Amino acid sequence: MTEDLSRYLRAVGHNARAAARILGRAETAIKNRALLTIASTLEAEAAALIAENGKDLEAGRAQGLDDAMLDRLGLDQRRIRAMAEGLREVAALPDPVGEISGLRYRPSGIQVGRMRVPLGVVAIIYESRPNVTADAAALCLKSGNACILRGGSEAIHSNRAIAARIRAGLEAAGLPVDAVQLVATTDRAAVGELLRLDDCIDVIVPRGGKGLIERVVAESRIPVIKHLDGNCHVYIDDRCDADKAIRIALNAKTQRYGVCNAMETLLIAEAVAPRLLPELARRFRDKGVELRGCPRTCALIPDCLPATEADWDTEYLAPILAIRVVADLDMAIEHIHRHGSGHTDAIVTEDYSRARRFLREVDSSSVMVNASTRFADGYEYGLGAEIGISTDKLHARGPVGLEGLTTQKFVVLGDGQIRE
Amino acid sequence: MTEDLSRYLRAVGHNARAAARILGRAETAIKNRALLTIASTLEAEAAALIAENGKDLEAGRAQGLDDAMLDRLGLDQRRIRAMAEGLREVAALPDPVGEISGLRYRPSGIQVGRMRVPLGVVAIIYESRPNVTADAAALCLKSGNACILRGGSEAIHSNRAIAARIRAGLEAAGLPVDAVQLVATTDRAAVGELLRLDDCIDVIVPRGGKGLIERVVAESRIPVIKHLDGNCHVYIDDRCDADKAIRIALNAKTQRYGVCNAMETLLIAEAVAPRLLPELARRFRDKGVELRGCPRTCALIPDCLPATEADWDTEYLAPILAIRVVADLDMAIEHIHRHGSGHTDAIVTEDYSRARRFLREVDSSSVMVNASTRFADGYEYGLGAEIGISTDKLHARGPVGLEGLTTQKFVVLGDGQIRE
Repeated sequence: MTEDLSRYLRAVGHNARAAARILGRAETAIKNRALLTIASTLEAEAAALIAENGKDLEAGRAQGLDDAMLDRLGLDQRRIRAMAEGLREVAALPDPVGEISGLRYRPSGIQVGRMRVPLGVVAIIYESRPNVTADAAALCLKSGNACILRGGSEAIHSNRAIAARIRAGLEAAGLPVDAVQLVATTDRAAVGELLRLDDCIDVIVPRGGKGLIERVVAESRIPVIKHLDGNCHVYIDDRCDADKAIRIALNAKTQRYGVCNAMETLLIAEAVAPRLLPELARRFRDKGVELRGCPRTCALIPDCLPATEADWDTEYLAPILAIRVVADLDMAIEHIHRHGSGHTDAIVTEDYSRARRFLREVDSSSVMVNASTRFADGYEYGLGAEIGISTDKLHARGPVGLEGLTTQKFVVLGDGQIRE
Repeated sequence: MTEDLSRYLRAVGHNARAAARILGRAETAIKNRALLTIASTLEAEAAALIAENGKDLEAGRAQGLDDAMLDRLGLDQRRIRAMAEGLREVAALPDPVGEISGLRYRPSGIQVGRMRVPLGVVAIIYESRPNVTADAAALCLKSGNACILRGGSEAIHSNRAIAARIRAGLEAAGLPVDAVQLVATTDRAAVGELLRLDDCIDVIVPRGGKGLIERVVAESRIPVIKHLDGNCHVYIDDRCDADKAIRIALNAKTQRYGVCNAMETLLIAEAVAPRLLPELARRFRDKGVELRGCPRTCALIPDCLPATEADWDTEYLAPILAIRVVADLDMAIEHIHRHGSGHTDAIVTEDYSRARRFLREVDSSSVMVNASTRFADGYEYGLGAEIGISTDKLHARGPVGLEGLTTQKFVVLGDGQIRE
């Protein structure tokens, strides 16, 4: 069985590699036609998709999945339409492949520039939400990459149904169907086998819980675009506009709780804490947010729970907020350096030099002035869609869209130049 | 002893991390001043450096190092001047750190762009040539990265002498001396310890033989910018200019033999092979190059040795050239795809569409039209200097200069915007 699995995944890898070569030189119009065909097919065959999804939901209920997981798993007309719209949006984005930039003459007479090209084969390992099947395939297709999709076993019927429509769309457009392959087995050992295919796969994108990501990083010999913690901060400076500070702090924490770009710790300058914290506390309490503060915070907000050292390092993903009063910008930057996860951090200030320092000195994938951390997102940044948010520094940092799925090679144009 | 070593390298890592934070926000003028001071000091103290280098040479001779290695190891006035000039050139390059690009308004009202920032801490593991100590330190310093240098034991006195001048220059400029640290021990276990410091080091650059690089890739949990084989091709198309074809083929092979961007296999279209190969063979023989050809090549060049399948995959780094007659561009691209190493490949043609296809379809870090593969080099490309040539696809591909030692974070400027 394990040998069969290994052989099967090796075949998937080789098929992907062969498809990638063809897809890598496919014309933009043909890739777009495939995307639009798939979008229409998904909408036209919504009833069949919903029926297949029903099997997953039934199995999920039998297995005792909780309501939140069942909700993520479910497909309905609205979600299928959203999936189709996502494909159309990717079709509308400019094709990154083949773009040549910076082509300049050198003293030797050669012209040197860079051409953007696909990475090759991208493997995506994900959990529950079946729309990832369409989103990830669309981004890979547009960026000229073949993809290997490994969805969760709980969504296997839905993922198969979606993948079949994607492959039909590829075929109709004259593109290789193996440009998008869904791993057909729910055998858990398949992930381990994928991680060993370093001659067939150029990059792995795990999307899911921390356990999955840590396993992939530990086992993989293939480069990983990964997303770890989002322990995000908002620092309210004493030279802030109070209205903006309150609006941003509330939005960053309460617009959605279970997301990586939600604020987890609020830092506030001591000079404005007495004026702003009571008001903020009232507003957070109205939203049902539990507050945990440093001693100075607790002195200003009578019913605030005392924060422990562990609170500064926790990504709650829940209606809980840690609050710390800091002396100044230096202490805020130091706190973020020590406790942050390098995801997204924001300052609220009207002071030009402090804004500039915060942007330069805070080493996170997104740094913001007077905006909610919730904006750290591929759509909001104009990338069109995202395959994930990277907390790595190399290659791709922050929201990863089409560009993060490509690389650049050097192109040299000459007239017979040789090196002396 | 191993525990001591482990503790020592952990301290080196922590010192580098602390120095990186300060260096990352250092002003351009101060970094440049340090570089220029170091350049002057190296020149002024050339006699002392040559004396220290003498100890390495003596030990090397006693250990029986061959002449080529002793030559690479040696320092004289000319080489020290070249090292100082290298530092001045890096000082003259634009500072990449802090550059903001693509700052655009989004429909939400926020402005989103990207700021170029240092990676943090770079470890470079290298062999024999002591000038790498100065080159690598200069590139890291300018790009705002702290570096940990692990040179070969055969150059330890020279490297220590150079590193001491670099640290003095940092101190004189008011920068942290630990921004450049040379690993003080020649214990071979030190490399293994470095590779485990994934919380202190952001990227490892191994520069040396294949054995070193493969070991680093296998053991490291830290991202590696690596350079593997340079099995480079020149394809002479039947629509080429014959003079350019001969000039480029000769230069690509014979300008220097032991370099990664030298041609190792010549591909030639069958329609021009009878006309060009005899002339090329004569010219190569004059330079003392051994030729190994496919059967059709051997038929055209009487004294050509027959090539085996292994020849197509070999990076000779020597005056040996494999030659293959191919039917057309398709077969040339297929040969490069199967046997190439993705380093540098060139086409010689006057045909517009074939040039365009070669550039797009050959998946190498440098693709060239009518230019010698020997141009694949940081200086020739205008990067100013290079820390290496990457044969990876992710992050940096091809010659890696200051830009490859940096990453980009998103910056968001707002006026109190929140996400609806």
